[in-house]
Amino acid sequence: MKKLGIIGGLGPWATAYFYRRVVDLTPAKRDQDHIETLIYSMPQIPDRTAFLLSRDPAAEDPRPALIKVGRTLRENGAEVLAIPCITAHAFHSELEEGIGLSVLHAIRELGEVCWEKGVTKVGIMATDGARISRIYDDVLTGYGVTCFWPEKEGQQDVMDMIYKCVKQGIPISPKTFSRVAIGLFESGAESIVLGCTELSEAKLDLDLDEKYIDIIDVLAAACVRECMR
Amino acid sequence: MKKLGIIGGLGPWATAYFYRRVVDLTPAKRDQDHIETLIYSMPQIPDRTAFLLSRDPAAEDPRPALIKVGRTLRENGAEVLAIPCITAHAFHSELEEGIGLSVLHAIRELGEVCWEKGVTKVGIMATDGARISRIYDDVLTGYGVTCFWPEKEGQQDVMDMIYKCVKQGIPISPKTFSRVAIGLFESGAESIVLGCTELSEAKLDLDLDEKYIDIIDVLAAACVRECMR
Repeated sequence: MKKLGIIGGLGPWATAYFYRRVVDLTPAKRDQDHIETLIYSMPQIPDRTAFLLSRDPAAEDPRPALIKVGRTLRENGAEVLAIPCITAHAFHSELEEGIGLSVLHAIRELGEVCWEKGVTKVGIMATDGARISRIYDDVLTGYGVTCFWPEKEGQQDVMDMIYKCVKQGIPISPKTFSRVAIGLFESGAESIVLGCTELSEAKLDLDLDEKYIDIIDVLAAACVRECMR
Repeated sequence: MKKLGIIGGLGPWATAYFYRRVVDLTPAKRDQDHIETLIYSMPQIPDRTAFLLSRDPAAEDPRPALIKVGRTLRENGAEVLAIPCITAHAFHSELEEGIGLSVLHAIRELGEVCWEKGVTKVGIMATDGARISRIYDDVLTGYGVTCFWPEKEGQQDVMDMIYKCVKQGIPISPKTFSRVAIGLFESGAESIVLGCTELSEAKLDLDLDEKYIDIIDVLAAACVRECMR
């Protein structure tokens, strides 16, 4: 069994929930059947979306800190790395190069899931940083999947759910979540991707059916597969 | 802000939930306000109760692995250490000595909480290892608190909830949980301590009132206090 390393803290809530999903998805009858895991949660890593938008010239570059965390995990024996922060995937290849170890790619894993399910039109709820860097669109197009994004107001709702709710310890409003989801289905999406790891919080209050794909679950399942291979 | 180190994997579910409670209890408006945390989850650490009971002469000693994990955390900069496994507190002083850093003591923290609340009679739901090593009784007596333990059958129910439910990814039966709790209240307990970190799982399905004290929350609050001091 390989040792898992989690580059965490982006945000901390998502890191805790992500590790829980890794545990849930691991076939185990006792503690000792579980994956050895090292989690380095460094919430002080500069905000990824603020840097990607570049509206603020003082926005700090998160890459050096992300690489430092990844290297610490590698130096302590991690063999499989994952980042439960989708926006940080905008720097995926630079992170792999800087850390010196391959990093699972949540959106490529999502592409595989869509391919298997036969889903070709997905609505994406994710940060402005993920949207503007086109990480979803560019990767998923290779799997024959078209991305639908919320209208301007809906996108602001998504940002507020992430930054004004989950990152501040406040539950997501089911009403706001549903309004954005309905808009995406109406625009033609067959499935909706909870495409920011903080949005899994919505699952605690809403009973989401199989039309919703949680990127945290997709990445957690990939970790279990790779560590137990 | 001090860096937190979590000796984890005992069990993995409890580690994930414990870190989530640290996050929940941290006053924060954004990721960057949270505590830098290193979690080393090593579920392969031999079972603590099996070793403490000593019925099985082949039971492995968990102490070397616990110390190894603690040292790794210390070497990577952790300044405040916590073990979200109460049974492992039976080795608390040996762990501190072996690691070379002080470790928060969940049961002493619980003693403080009981003292503040004016609670003097607590029912304990915990492992056979925690019971037989008398870690609850010996520490809490110093805070003027008397421990009540379940009858033989109830103690077996507690062990089954931990080992046959949570550690195997199966939800705790609310009926079983309530039966043990009622027995403890009837025997004279004023409050009940969820005294094994895996038992917090019961909170997901049961609406437990202020008569229940969750040792995970007690230890998580102590971590936040010490790291933000």
